[in-house]
Amino acid sequence: MKKYAFEYIMEVRDYECDLQGIVNNANYQHYLEHTRHKFLEAHNVSFADLHNRGIDAVVARVSIDYKNSLKPGDKFASRLNLVKDGIKYTFFQDIYRLPDEKVCIKARIDSVTIINGRLGICQELEDLVEKIAAEIAE
Amino acid sequence: MKKYAFEYIMEVRDYECDLQGIVNNANYQHYLEHTRHKFLEAHNVSFADLHNRGIDAVVARVSIDYKNSLKPGDKFASRLNLVKDGIKYTFFQDIYRLPDEKVCIKARIDSVTIINGRLGICQELEDLVEKIAAEIAE
Amino acid sequence: MKKYAFEYIMEVRDYECDLQGIVNNANYQHYLEHTRHKFLEAHNVSFADLHNRGIDAVVARVSIDYKNSLKPGDKFASRLNLVKDGIKYTFFQDIYRLPDEKVCIKARIDSVTIINGRLGICQELEDLVEKIAAEIAE
Amino acid sequence: MKKYAFEYIMEVRDYECDLQGIVNNANYQHYLEHTRHKFLEAHNVSFADLHNRGIDAVVARVSIDYKNSLKPGDKFASRLNLVKDGIKYTFFQDIYRLPDEKVCIKARIDSVTIINGRLGICQELEDLVEKIAAEIAE
Repeated sequence: MKKYAFEYIMEVRDYECDLQGIVNNANYQHYLEHTRHKFLEAHNVSFADLHNRGIDAVVARVSIDYKNSLKPGDKFASRLNLVKDGIKYTFFQDIYRLPDEKVCIKARIDSVTIINGRLGICQELEDLVEKIAAEIAE
Repeated sequence: MKKYAFEYIMEVRDYECDLQGIVNNANYQHYLEHTRHKFLEAHNVSFADLHNRGIDAVVARVSIDYKNSLKPGDKFASRLNLVKDGIKYTFFQDIYRLPDEKVCIKARIDSVTIINGRLGICQELEDLVEKIAAEIAE
Repeated sequence: MKKYAFEYIMEVRDYECDLQGIVNNANYQHYLEHTRHKFLEAHNVSFADLHNRGIDAVVARVSIDYKNSLKPGDKFASRLNLVKDGIKYTFFQDIYRLPDEKVCIKARIDSVTIINGRLGICQELEDLVEKIAAEIAE
Repeated sequence: MKKYAFEYIMEVRDYECDLQGIVNNANYQHYLEHTRHKFLEAHNVSFADLHNRGIDAVVARVSIDYKNSLKPGDKFASRLNLVKDGIKYTFFQDIYRLPDEKVCIKARIDSVTIINGRLGICQELEDLVEKIAAEIAE
């Protein structure tokens, strides 16, 4: 069984660092969001297209443990797993510095789907969760 | 007994909104950080000065419940309470839309103090926590 | 004759500063954009509403002279004038640190109006330019 | 003779887009800054290291022509040339959408070097300009 369904490699950009000389806390949420959207894209689901069709995946809850700071020049692997829990899609997202695999953050993001203003079910995301569950179980 | 030790009024800037037309999730962390720094400033503690003296208040854990989205033009009250828990300073931070007081996010931020690279105690923050506890209890 | 049609007071937020400990260059464009939108709002024109009606004011050209850096804690006045030049609306926008009135940036922003995908004339903006011209001439 | 000394491939991240559904103007300055820093890195010069040694390359003037907007999902090439003009290092930086090579922005960035608070000459940057001039002339 695999631990992560998706991995995306990124690197710190200097403008993402604040006066402490490390990546500003808020920017990790940008990394996590971008990773989720790249994951969707890898499965032919576009966040922007969904929005244009009246389907918005929205975050209901975020919890992030900040373990080690990323610094200018650091490369990192942003890894993700996705499970369904009732009407919630829960993403487990961890960021590891490369190449030493030091854990930087561990995050859990609970999201729901709003269709034309109401909680709803998006079939593309349902199919995706099933596909991921099958892949992870391999 | 008061519920919050500090309140800061802000308003949404259009560039903080993303293609969904609402404030991007990561930007709430900016609002929360800025509120903490204004709170410190109101008590004559400067985050930037602390950093320049080798004292960094760093976030160890963030959890945010996203209840209602802020939109372009919205004004909001960012309210904060602070308690000490061992070596952790825990901020309870809630954002309410104005003037209808609809809750937008409820957050808990656990932070610690790093002095010259190691976990440490910052006397200014210790004094502040005591002062706040006394004020809140009034 | 007045030099500026509008003034908006802001202050530096720590997260807007980068590892050099000063406001990151790109963030001045955020300050300038927000000032333009507050200026429109002061004249009952909403950037977001215009967008929702298919009218987008877009920037065609930006030039910014960076004179003095803003630092954490600095307050500043963001001042603006607006003139029309053919199909272009040209904003002259200067930022001064407070209270010493040291000039921080001097900027010129040329913008045009896109209506349903094509260059067009937005009557609200036309009326606004005339009103401003009359006020400035006083 | 080559037209550009450096090219860096990037792609739009959804959070960089604003409520108009296109990349926010300020974010192009982030793209340009990151490209300059990657260019320096490719020549073994680190912007963050320079800062830590008291040498800050600072932007004195930016002018950007916005030609075509980047949208969610777009890939782009950020290309750069560098020439010296007195004490100024002038970067010519253009961004092209991929794969159709449509020009998005054309920018000119004038920068100077501040060493321990005063205008100064950084030998690493001097050497780099000479090396680039030789490469471009090939």
